[in-house]
Amino acid sequence: MQEFTVYFSPQDRSVKVAKGTDLLSAAIKCGIVLTAACGGEGLCGKCRIVIKKGKARVEASRLVSEADRKRGVALACQSLVEGDLEIEIPKESLGMHEKPPGESEEFTKGVISEREKSFAFSPLVRKIYLELTKPTADDGTSDLDRIYAELGSRIDHVHISTKLSNIKHLDELMRESGYDVTVILGHKDDSLEILSIETGDTSKMCFGFAFDIGTTTVAGQLIDLSAGKILGTRIAFNKQAAFGSDIITRIVYAETPEGLAKLNGAVTANIDEMIEDLASSCGINLSDIYGMTFAGNMTMMHLLLNIDPSSIRRAPYVPATTAFPVMPAPELKLEINPKGVVSFLPGVASYIGGDIVAGVLACGLEEAKDLTLLADIGTNGEVVLGNREWMMGTAASAGPAFEGSGLGHGMKAVKGAIEKAVIDERFDVKTQTIGDAKPKGICGSGYIDILCQLLKRNIIGKDGKINREIKSDRIRKAASCYEFVIASKDQTAIGKEIVIDEDDIENLKRAKGAVYSAIISLLNKVERKPSDLKKVYIAGGFGNYLNIENAVYIGLLPDIDRSVYEFIGNSSLAGARMALISQAAMGKANDIYRKIMYLDLGSEPNYMDEYIASLFFPHTDLRRFPSVRLSR
Amino acid sequence: MQEFTVYFSPQDRSVKVAKGTDLLSAAIKCGIVLTAACGGEGLCGKCRIVIKKGKARVEASRLVSEADRKRGVALACQSLVEGDLEIEIPKESLGMHEKPPGESEEFTKGVISEREKSFAFSPLVRKIYLELTKPTADDGTSDLDRIYAELGSRIDHVHISTKLSNIKHLDELMRESGYDVTVILGHKDDSLEILSIETGDTSKMCFGFAFDIGTTTVAGQLIDLSAGKILGTRIAFNKQAAFGSDIITRIVYAETPEGLAKLNGAVTANIDEMIEDLASSCGINLSDIYGMTFAGNMTMMHLLLNIDPSSIRRAPYVPATTAFPVMPAPELKLEINPKGVVSFLPGVASYIGGDIVAGVLACGLEEAKDLTLLADIGTNGEVVLGNREWMMGTAASAGPAFEGSGLGHGMKAVKGAIEKAVIDERFDVKTQTIGDAKPKGICGSGYIDILCQLLKRNIIGKDGKINREIKSDRIRKAASCYEFVIASKDQTAIGKEIVIDEDDIENLKRAKGAVYSAIISLLNKVERKPSDLKKVYIAGGFGNYLNIENAVYIGLLPDIDRSVYEFIGNSSLAGARMALISQAAMGKANDIYRKIMYLDLGSEPNYMDEYIASLFFPHTDLRRFPSVRLSR
Repeated sequence: MQEFTVYFSPQDRSVKVAKGTDLLSAAIKCGIVLTAACGGEGLCGKCRIVIKKGKARVEASRLVSEADRKRGVALACQSLVEGDLEIEIPKESLGMHEKPPGESEEFTKGVISEREKSFAFSPLVRKIYLELTKPTADDGTSDLDRIYAELGSRIDHVHISTKLSNIKHLDELMRESGYDVTVILGHKDDSLEILSIETGDTSKMCFGFAFDIGTTTVAGQLIDLSAGKILGTRIAFNKQAAFGSDIITRIVYAETPEGLAKLNGAVTANIDEMIEDLASSCGINLSDIYGMTFAGNMTMMHLLLNIDPSSIRRAPYVPATTAFPVMPAPELKLEINPKGVVSFLPGVASYIGGDIVAGVLACGLEEAKDLTLLADIGTNGEVVLGNREWMMGTAASAGPAFEGSGLGHGMKAVKGAIEKAVIDERFDVKTQTIGDAKPKGICGSGYIDILCQLLKRNIIGKDGKINREIKSDRIRKAASCYEFVIASKDQTAIGKEIVIDEDDIENLKRAKGAVYSAIISLLNKVERKPSDLKKVYIAGGFGNYLNIENAVYIGLLPDIDRSVYEFIGNSSLAGARMALISQAAMGKANDIYRKIMYLDLGSEPNYMDEYIASLFFPHTDLRRFPSVRLSR
Repeated sequence: MQEFTVYFSPQDRSVKVAKGTDLLSAAIKCGIVLTAACGGEGLCGKCRIVIKKGKARVEASRLVSEADRKRGVALACQSLVEGDLEIEIPKESLGMHEKPPGESEEFTKGVISEREKSFAFSPLVRKIYLELTKPTADDGTSDLDRIYAELGSRIDHVHISTKLSNIKHLDELMRESGYDVTVILGHKDDSLEILSIETGDTSKMCFGFAFDIGTTTVAGQLIDLSAGKILGTRIAFNKQAAFGSDIITRIVYAETPEGLAKLNGAVTANIDEMIEDLASSCGINLSDIYGMTFAGNMTMMHLLLNIDPSSIRRAPYVPATTAFPVMPAPELKLEINPKGVVSFLPGVASYIGGDIVAGVLACGLEEAKDLTLLADIGTNGEVVLGNREWMMGTAASAGPAFEGSGLGHGMKAVKGAIEKAVIDERFDVKTQTIGDAKPKGICGSGYIDILCQLLKRNIIGKDGKINREIKSDRIRKAASCYEFVIASKDQTAIGKEIVIDEDDIENLKRAKGAVYSAIISLLNKVERKPSDLKKVYIAGGFGNYLNIENAVYIGLLPDIDRSVYEFIGNSSLAGARMALISQAAMGKANDIYRKIMYLDLGSEPNYMDEYIASLFFPHTDLRRFPSVRLSR
């Protein structure tokens, strides 16, 4: 087998690969993850590279212009190694994976905060310090029974057990510690297990992580499990995006040889990086992390657990399980204390996962007296409708636009992201960024504001096309369509302009249409109207801010009394945190997942009509949006 | 490091060892286990070998006569390799380990049988065949929830869980099997765990083993877990005897480098051999064995589980635990189905183990209305006294004599063992052997009969010495003491005479004295007399027979109304079987071990006096044995 060396700049890394290897795989092999929304099919044109030197067999692509092709530009996935190569990777091709992962403020206000307080503190893992009496000739209670007896006097009656490994050297440990030990207890189903026993008082050194594993975005939160306090939060793009931007593409990729292992490795790397980053920034040892709780959609959970997800995309779309057992941390190959345990929010069906159950848990929909709706706006838009009597849920493929992915200048809701925008009569744009930094791009809430303002200022029409008749420096024709300049080169932190173009607007229109039509379809199914809704919780990775008024204006949300709306941020992460901190909350999640009925939009005869009718701003049928007044 | 080859005959095996290795270790290294009651200290003289050729540095020993020394006889543990060697191993040095392991009839009569019937059938592991409905677009229940739902309808409400490994390929398995699967359920604490899922109906293929791990004897029983039936029983000498015959010697050996691993390896080999032997003789695959339950004394359980047992012999004599969790079979490195599980009868204290709790379980002492006693006559003699209100237990070191070990012609209670004997006025001996075979040796019940007959015929006196004045061919002076011939060379299956000598009698006297004085001390402690006993269960590896009358006559058991006595065989094995077949029985065992108070004979001021007074046949104080009439 002939092998060649491929050198990548500016990363300054080399890798030896067999002749015929594609450059996307070669880059992954040395740890460089390129954007490849289509999963390496040559369709999305995101994995652009520049061949500086050497021989590659490049498949021609209509996504690379002749001029670009001449200066060496090619798609990595369509270029096969034919000799030693020197490759340059433009920053854009790495856009989704830039380090460091962003920071986010904690979103713990309103209903989330109320709900969190309602659950008794009983973390997945807890540490209890015991000062035991020593055995004597008259008190021959064994070391383990001594521990059980003391725990029994501290904890309400519950079955406690342990594994052989904790007994093997207990003898020495007890004598060395003078019978002063810290017991690490993990919840498992309805009982407690002694995960480990440590010498002396280490009871304050007990930390955990809550994670939301989204298709596009991964969010993690470090929790002090001795106090139930949030110590920090991180979000990052899911590294699996290198293998496809949507769930179906990833499942297809998982079915290729090594595909599942690569997807698993990518998200595991995400998690490990976040753990290390958060732990080190808080001065915490990885060995003091004992518990983790994950929420995510069904496909993400399968990939995280290294389980073949193909049943999710094949009729009758029934996965092997929607609920996963508590398991030892080493099963996930995560670098926390090896005695630690990991739990998972249960899901409802292939397309209503633990992230949505976490969301319901976080906002308390399952206890609502009145008709309540939760819409989680992510790569899939999931909607749950109901009250304490019944719940029904559905999902629509919205795409990652509102998460800031797949758009020209989209970014996560982290420092430097435009989160608010106002356009005045002279088309001047005032923006507010997260952390008041120079803008680097636009996050979901920023795009919603911009779309609304473009509509109000007549810069775009109902169809989302830019008004070609307007004369303004901000409006111009780009390569394939028109674009509007949001920030000039000197205003930004990225050394170039930030713009929104008609392709971006098309993407956003489809995303908002998918969410809106899912909400309407669900209401139709139970013969209710939007105005019947007494409470609507909007969740999603928009950061700390979402302008509901503007979201209604563009047709993302129904035009009803604004006071019923509450934006609750990343409710999946909030639910995961609650389930980590309180096993009563986890118990509730186990009730919720069994109570939600799943509605398959694909089988709903009117869904497609609803969706197509919603592909306008705000909608084909303006009577549905009486508060929106368009001038053209 | 200089290495030499040692060749052993008649086994025809060779091994390379470093210069200076002792021959006991060299033999073990190639799988030949010599008798070494003292643990290789050169004290017991049991590991005799003959050096046929080559150079060894032999430590002089008073246990090897000058004549023997000249023809190459040496103690293996006292001979260090100095060059290539050819070694012959006399049969006697292997006596305790001869193959094949003996067979024993099932002992399931009387109270054991009654008790066994009282427990509901709920084996440690059970298989349930399910014909499930297939998922459809309208029934999107996940595969696992489908299984849980069906199990829920078949089994009384109980928490059921499973491990990730059973979910990973469930998807394929369900589809391939057409949703007809057999679920293997294991009990764990109060809940059930799906250990494995198999294609089609394999529900009849579910077997288990009950084991009694004794210091001297290991007994195993193969059970059909689908029907609760005994398929076969085996007993064998514990291979750990090569490292010492009593518990303390073994613990000391376990503290030497590699000592624990060797002891663990020895008993694991015992168990594996028995499993293979029984399974193959019943035509059962090892992979269809899913559950095992062990009873044994505390030291045996530590060694089986590879746990350092040193706390058992060091003040305050408190082990790390007396109860062991249910664990996956691979933790014991046993060659049954790797998804199988193993449970253990809990013990009371360092010297009252799970074997005694099993015995109490088997005879139902913990539910007795009247004062009841259980005496388990093994290498340690353990006694439990009490009723349904209270229980107290104690242990005395009896030695392995009644198990047929440590005596000139002692053997296990298997085919060919003399189990009954009568000596007539002319000193002719009539014997009955197990299986009516030509005698190979004498088991415990045979020795008790012989001792009684020797006393009655005045051949031995109260002190156990052979009457030197009697003229008989059967009585003669041997190397160091007098002996009595039980069977002539032509009557036996071993090509030589079977005799009992004064050393054997001394051994048996100490054993019976230890048991008797333990019984009396326990009664004294609670201010009761032997005649207060309403029921006495005698357990031990005597086979199917024990002559209570004779046991009283020699002073092993108190001289009370014979009708209170019931011989119940190996009650540890019976209890292990009950705990394997019924989790209600195991639950009972978990109550029992907490209820038994431990009495330490070492701290009892009068125990030593009692013991010394009992070192006569039947006792110093003949008023205690009014039914025994000695003529001298």
